[in-house]
Amino acid sequence: MEPRPREHDVPDAASGSGAAASLPPAREPTHAERVRTLVHGERRGALSTVAADPAGYPFGSVVSFGLADDGDPLMFVSLMAEHTQNALRDPRASLLVAEPVPEGADPLAGGRVTLLGLLTPIDEDGARDVARARYLEANPAASYYIDFGDFTFLRLNVDHVRFVGGYGRMSWVDAADYRTATPDPLVGAAAGIIEHMNADHADAQVLFCRHFAGLADTESATMSAVDRYGFDLVAVSNAQRTAVRLAFPEECTTGDEVRRAMVAMVAEARAASPR
Amino acid sequence: MEPRPREHDVPDAASGSGAAASLPPAREPTHAERVRTLVHGERRGALSTVAADPAGYPFGSVVSFGLADDGDPLMFVSLMAEHTQNALRDPRASLLVAEPVPEGADPLAGGRVTLLGLLTPIDEDGARDVARARYLEANPAASYYIDFGDFTFLRLNVDHVRFVGGYGRMSWVDAADYRTATPDPLVGAAAGIIEHMNADHADAQVLFCRHFAGLADTESATMSAVDRYGFDLVAVSNAQRTAVRLAFPEECTTGDEVRRAMVAMVAEARAASPR
Repeated sequence: MEPRPREHDVPDAASGSGAAASLPPAREPTHAERVRTLVHGERRGALSTVAADPAGYPFGSVVSFGLADDGDPLMFVSLMAEHTQNALRDPRASLLVAEPVPEGADPLAGGRVTLLGLLTPIDEDGARDVARARYLEANPAASYYIDFGDFTFLRLNVDHVRFVGGYGRMSWVDAADYRTATPDPLVGAAAGIIEHMNADHADAQVLFCRHFAGLADTESATMSAVDRYGFDLVAVSNAQRTAVRLAFPEECTTGDEVRRAMVAMVAEARAASPR
Repeated sequence: MEPRPREHDVPDAASGSGAAASLPPAREPTHAERVRTLVHGERRGALSTVAADPAGYPFGSVVSFGLADDGDPLMFVSLMAEHTQNALRDPRASLLVAEPVPEGADPLAGGRVTLLGLLTPIDEDGARDVARARYLEANPAASYYIDFGDFTFLRLNVDHVRFVGGYGRMSWVDAADYRTATPDPLVGAAAGIIEHMNADHADAQVLFCRHFAGLADTESATMSAVDRYGFDLVAVSNAQRTAVRLAFPEECTTGDEVRRAMVAMVAEARAASPR
């Protein structure tokens, strides 16, 4: 866990640093953490390799992958496939992993990451056993052919990481930071938390915006994201819509911890609010 | 329109060439036609360009695209974006376009195509107007920034085409064939036709398998695909499941023409069947 975030994604958002609030500054996931979370949640990507014919053309193909502990993608590929032949001749490669985009949504508004590195065969028995287990975990359908002889395991040894979080939110992420970052523990629970909060606790969210973000004229508020460090709201008043980032009092790693944090925040805001 | 298909994807499928049948041989879309249809139905792909740093690495990124009449992808990109800077230095590129894979399905079973070529700026006014219109048609959300000054239109001048239709179905497609092939006119109607046939005309499909494919012991049959030339069924008997490809008597370009072809095929099969 890093002591401080290196990047803040929404520097102009209102946050819990107002005079009325006792919350810590609105810490956000670092880009390294966002990338690890994104890659952790997917199992398919677009691999780019260097083609032999037409010579030197970058060649895109679909691959499934699992993940090593340090975030290196692990693939299982046919020896006859174009990308395998390309990688065996020239190991320079990248793997593009993109968040799913809802039907009808702008495809360029979603997050995606390009992991660049050398794509090399995994020859050592122990390493191959790990790769096999990780690949199958992510791609159970491969169990039907995982022991075919004309396939091989490849590892993308990540040395550069490019993150695009949507329009205007992008950076090169240090590969060492990527390796040590952990996926957000709430990634599987986030959608349910957002749905529940927006459906059943709209009043609490208005209270949060008024008290912790100092937006006294908030009339409605919708949660748009939640992670271990806090959550994002859109506060709506007669005059405007404002992006709000609020931090949890302490890092939350489960849905239950989020619930308790929310209860504590409601209690604090109610105690401080004029009735 | 090509006089004959160059490739048959399911050479071992039962088809309408049995003694009892009067249908033409079970023509299928060529790979060039499958590729044009696939690309026509999507608006987002993975672009591979050659990176300057790290030097020579193939770099994958997400792009939206429209299509020129000859099938060349047309893109609208920020001048500051990595892929744009890469392409301006080295125009060698490819665009990977994949069919959507249903949730839970094997991601490697779907169709995808890699279009390779030189990615070059569109400078001429008339060509830029066409690119603008085609790009907006495919990506309406871009209307908010289509006239920004720090963007440019790019054209991928396709010179090589790699098709993968799923496990074991792949080929290099001649780029000239790709340019002249037309998308399947039923692509928008196919899902509705399949749903309707499987829900309401299961008996007709059994009749088709018995009569036209000579599978007399068929007990149930499910449609899995339909295109301008015909349709695919899975015929189920006590003993086995058999892939069946049946051709329409004539090419069908609308759902209504498909309906009339089906009615005629039912009439012919009933007339010939023992009661």
